Amino acid sequence: MGMRLSALVEAVGGRLERAAPSDGDRAITRVMTLEDADGSSISFITNLKYLDALKTTRAAAVLCDARTLKLHGELFPCPVVVTGNPYLAMAQLVTELHPAPRHPVGVNPLAVVHPEAVLGAGVTVMALACVGKARIGAGSVIYPHVFIDDDVEIGPDALIYPGCVIMRGTRVGARVILQPSCVIGSDGFGFAPDREGRMHKIPQVGNVVLGDDVEIGACTTIDRAALGSTRISNGTKLDNQVQVAHNVVLGENVVMAGQSAVAGSSRLGRSVMIGGGSGVGGHLTMHDGSKLTGGSFVMHDVPAGETWMGAPAFNHISRAKAEIHYRHLDEHVRTLKQLQKRVATLEAQLAGAPKAAGEGEKS
Amino acid sequence: MGMRLSALVEAVGGRLERAAPSDGDRAITRVMTLEDADGSSISFITNLKYLDALKTTRAAAVLCDARTLKLHGELFPCPVVVTGNPYLAMAQLVTELHPAPRHPVGVNPLAVVHPEAVLGAGVTVMALACVGKARIGAGSVIYPHVFIDDDVEIGPDALIYPGCVIMRGTRVGARVILQPSCVIGSDGFGFAPDREGRMHKIPQVGNVVLGDDVEIGACTTIDRAALGSTRISNGTKLDNQVQVAHNVVLGENVVMAGQSAVAGSSRLGRSVMIGGGSGVGGHLTMHDGSKLTGGSFVMHDVPAGETWMGAPAFNHISRAKAEIHYRHLDEHVRTLKQLQKRVATLEAQLAGAPKAAGEGEKS
Amino acid sequence: MGMRLSALVEAVGGRLERAAPSDGDRAITRVMTLEDADGSSISFITNLKYLDALKTTRAAAVLCDARTLKLHGELFPCPVVVTGNPYLAMAQLVTELHPAPRHPVGVNPLAVVHPEAVLGAGVTVMALACVGKARIGAGSVIYPHVFIDDDVEIGPDALIYPGCVIMRGTRVGARVILQPSCVIGSDGFGFAPDREGRMHKIPQVGNVVLGDDVEIGACTTIDRAALGSTRISNGTKLDNQVQVAHNVVLGENVVMAGQSAVAGSSRLGRSVMIGGGSGVGGHLTMHDGSKLTGGSFVMHDVPAGETWMGAPAFNHISRAKAEIHYRHLDEHVRTLKQLQKRVATLEAQLAGAPKAAGEGEKS
Repeated sequence: MGMRLSALVEAVGGRLERAAPSDGDRAITRVMTLEDADGSSISFITNLKYLDALKTTRAAAVLCDARTLKLHGELFPCPVVVTGNPYLAMAQLVTELHPAPRHPVGVNPLAVVHPEAVLGAGVTVMALACVGKARIGAGSVIYPHVFIDDDVEIGPDALIYPGCVIMRGTRVGARVILQPSCVIGSDGFGFAPDREGRMHKIPQVGNVVLGDDVEIGACTTIDRAALGSTRISNGTKLDNQVQVAHNVVLGENVVMAGQSAVAGSSRLGRSVMIGGGSGVGGHLTMHDGSKLTGGSFVMHDVPAGETWMGAPAFNHISRAKAEIHYRHLDEHVRTLKQLQKRVATLEAQLAGAPKAAGEGEKS
Repeated sequence: MGMRLSALVEAVGGRLERAAPSDGDRAITRVMTLEDADGSSISFITNLKYLDALKTTRAAAVLCDARTLKLHGELFPCPVVVTGNPYLAMAQLVTELHPAPRHPVGVNPLAVVHPEAVLGAGVTVMALACVGKARIGAGSVIYPHVFIDDDVEIGPDALIYPGCVIMRGTRVGARVILQPSCVIGSDGFGFAPDREGRMHKIPQVGNVVLGDDVEIGACTTIDRAALGSTRISNGTKLDNQVQVAHNVVLGENVVMAGQSAVAGSSRLGRSVMIGGGSGVGGHLTMHDGSKLTGGSFVMHDVPAGETWMGAPAFNHISRAKAEIHYRHLDEHVRTLKQLQKRVATLEAQLAGAPKAAGEGEKS
Repeated sequence: MGMRLSALVEAVGGRLERAAPSDGDRAITRVMTLEDADGSSISFITNLKYLDALKTTRAAAVLCDARTLKLHGELFPCPVVVTGNPYLAMAQLVTELHPAPRHPVGVNPLAVVHPEAVLGAGVTVMALACVGKARIGAGSVIYPHVFIDDDVEIGPDALIYPGCVIMRGTRVGARVILQPSCVIGSDGFGFAPDREGRMHKIPQVGNVVLGDDVEIGACTTIDRAALGSTRISNGTKLDNQVQVAHNVVLGENVVMAGQSAVAGSSRLGRSVMIGGGSGVGGHLTMHDGSKLTGGSFVMHDVPAGETWMGAPAFNHISRAKAEIHYRHLDEHVRTLKQLQKRVATLEAQLAGAPKAAGEGEKS
């Protein structure tokens, strides 16, 4: 594997700068961080926190955008590949230079597959996986210890890592990736209390529907709907340990970072982004393009395009202001107490003044 | 499957209102949301957020309580089934109209069961489950990829979904439901640091005891006690990704929503409710009927019946007040600064006054 | 099993106080909590919350440090074993008195092991575990339903509980303990958005390296690096449901409590401690010995040795002050409003005074 730097530049639609004529011929075999790169590596800078690492990198070349080159060009110790979206270019190069390992195709004899399961062409089911009366699309790969229940349909080219559990009724689109040990289709958390405080289970008889190009993180859980469907739309990506409750609907290209959660029946519009560790309360709507920063908890609908922050969350600009004052509360309260004294003094003076002024008082 | 509307009304102990004489004969085959219901569906309204959906529902009938009918009766486009607890009635109807799929009973030949395991009548152990020298009560269902260690006892009619891990010493009551990939009896997190900062593991030699009618969510983890038992009492329900640390004791009918946690040795009384994403610190007590709202973190004992909120949590009424002021801190601080100026002006005026007054001023 | 109290005292390097001459001969068979101890138990007190339990314990003897004995000596109803680090002594005694159950050594015929896997002496692989073309060090124990991918190396004496997933490229040191269902080497969460908002996966081609004496909690997830390695250094302990993102580096003897998380590329120095439910943002450094209290979220670098608190976190002493004022905001705002009125009155008085003073001033 490997490619010449000039071919690489062409592949990402970039242009080569600060290069000697011979640099285009260098063989690039891998993508590495600035710190770990060597003379056969291409590296990248997309976060200015790493300008120090840039100065000392041994990379054969570094990807960046035009702005970074303009502002920090003097720091680059090597040729530069300028592209409009260096992060995307990096993704493309990793795909080309670091191909995923290939598995033997087919059903391992130690897999347990229901005789009425329907497997598409080139499906791989590894040892100790368990597939019920389900349909699995062509080219899908099922790792060991995966459980696929009866009445599950999985689109083509799915990649389902070890330990995943996919319960009955689930529908999975094309090119979906399920990281290890995620759970799709567990029962929603629904109980009706009686007068004595006992909780009676409301059977959860809906399902989960995952669109195309969805990726679900390790140990993430997506509950089936009580009735109807919990829906994750095309292109949406969930990180590890995310919790999606019953009847939630996530729009297209939603991104939820690690340990975030959405409570029952809430809806997230297109391209909503949820920071790590954040929670969205139940029966809410976060409209298209809205964002919740990390460590937040939202209890109201969020308007389209707004960023909310904090717990409870509100608009991040208002909250940032409030937060600054919060940090200086000690000082503000001291000022307040001094003012109380000063006003009391003034009041005493004024109350006394007339007397003191007694004669004349002519300010 | 299905039942006549009149039989359904009788089954839930309700009364039919706004119905034509023939409506009682309609065949109801399923429970659906207001939005998805059709003419053979019964639906329900228990949350006023869905009044809009109520207006346009195509359901054959809608369950609600007397109060909702009284206040919003004009919105119902169909017959109404009035009951004291419509949510409970809904649970009952889902159970009747949407029965769970039935599995073949017995031990699958591809399951691995210890020869000295004791299985009650009608136990199901599916392929690739692994059962040690344990006792499993009659009627229990064990899905694939479940691990049940030696010295585990499971009461009758348990339902243990794929990927669950139940470590040695665990005791599980009757009618317990374990959602996929929960872990019962992992080691508690206990280490003794030495002077060099190295952490020495304190062997965790206690166990976990789950009462009757307990339900545990997907990827929820319950640690064994360091010594003695971690206890989850009868009727308690834990959602997905809940963490219960060693030596915690949860009372009866406790409800913990997704991603909440209780740190070591804390105790929750009867009917305590913990909102999603909330944490309870170690060695604390939340007394009977107390509540912690979502996204909170409590570091003190919570009195019986109180609701606490926030991180760090305190009484929710006090916190709601503080939170409102917090949101207006920018305004308050501006007021404070204006007051400083105004008081300084007053002080200058008063200081000047006497001088201006010239003669006298001797306070 | 069991030991005489005098031998026990010697084993922990302590001294026996408040004992009758014959007490040294008592047979001690187990370590128990103060509450559950009986006459053949040794107990311990390391947290003053349990002084009440101390008074009524039936333990044969209680471990504590010299300070506790000095301050609360009158509460001990039994002989006392005084040691410098009673918690460590307790750990030692649990190890001696409550030995772990022993498993039959060897590869179970129902395990699935790659023919080219290299297993050290005395390795145990239980039924339904799946081991790829990997190296497993001598004395390691692999429970059922564990998945070990190709190109994994595991040091000697590892203990890998059921359901763990260890993906390709992972390197695991000596004496590592993986609690059930943890995931090591899932893909990092890296996507490059294009102009239409579609997220393109950046292949994650790095790995995870776990040092010696590391312990990882149940359902904890550690992502492989995008490029290079995610590193967990020697002696570090992670509790349940912890999330470690790609390219994170954790120093030695770091402790992360349940449901905490570190976002991508952040670094934690030696002996950093993270409280339960806390999050560390991406591309940050927490320097040696710094601490984050439970329920916090940090978005800035934390200096060595400092304790930070809250969301967003800052120094815990400053935050504690701010938090106290926050709780009294209602009162402070009331004071502020009263001051506004009082100042307005003063201003009116002063403005009016001269005129009023004009003829007689009689307000």
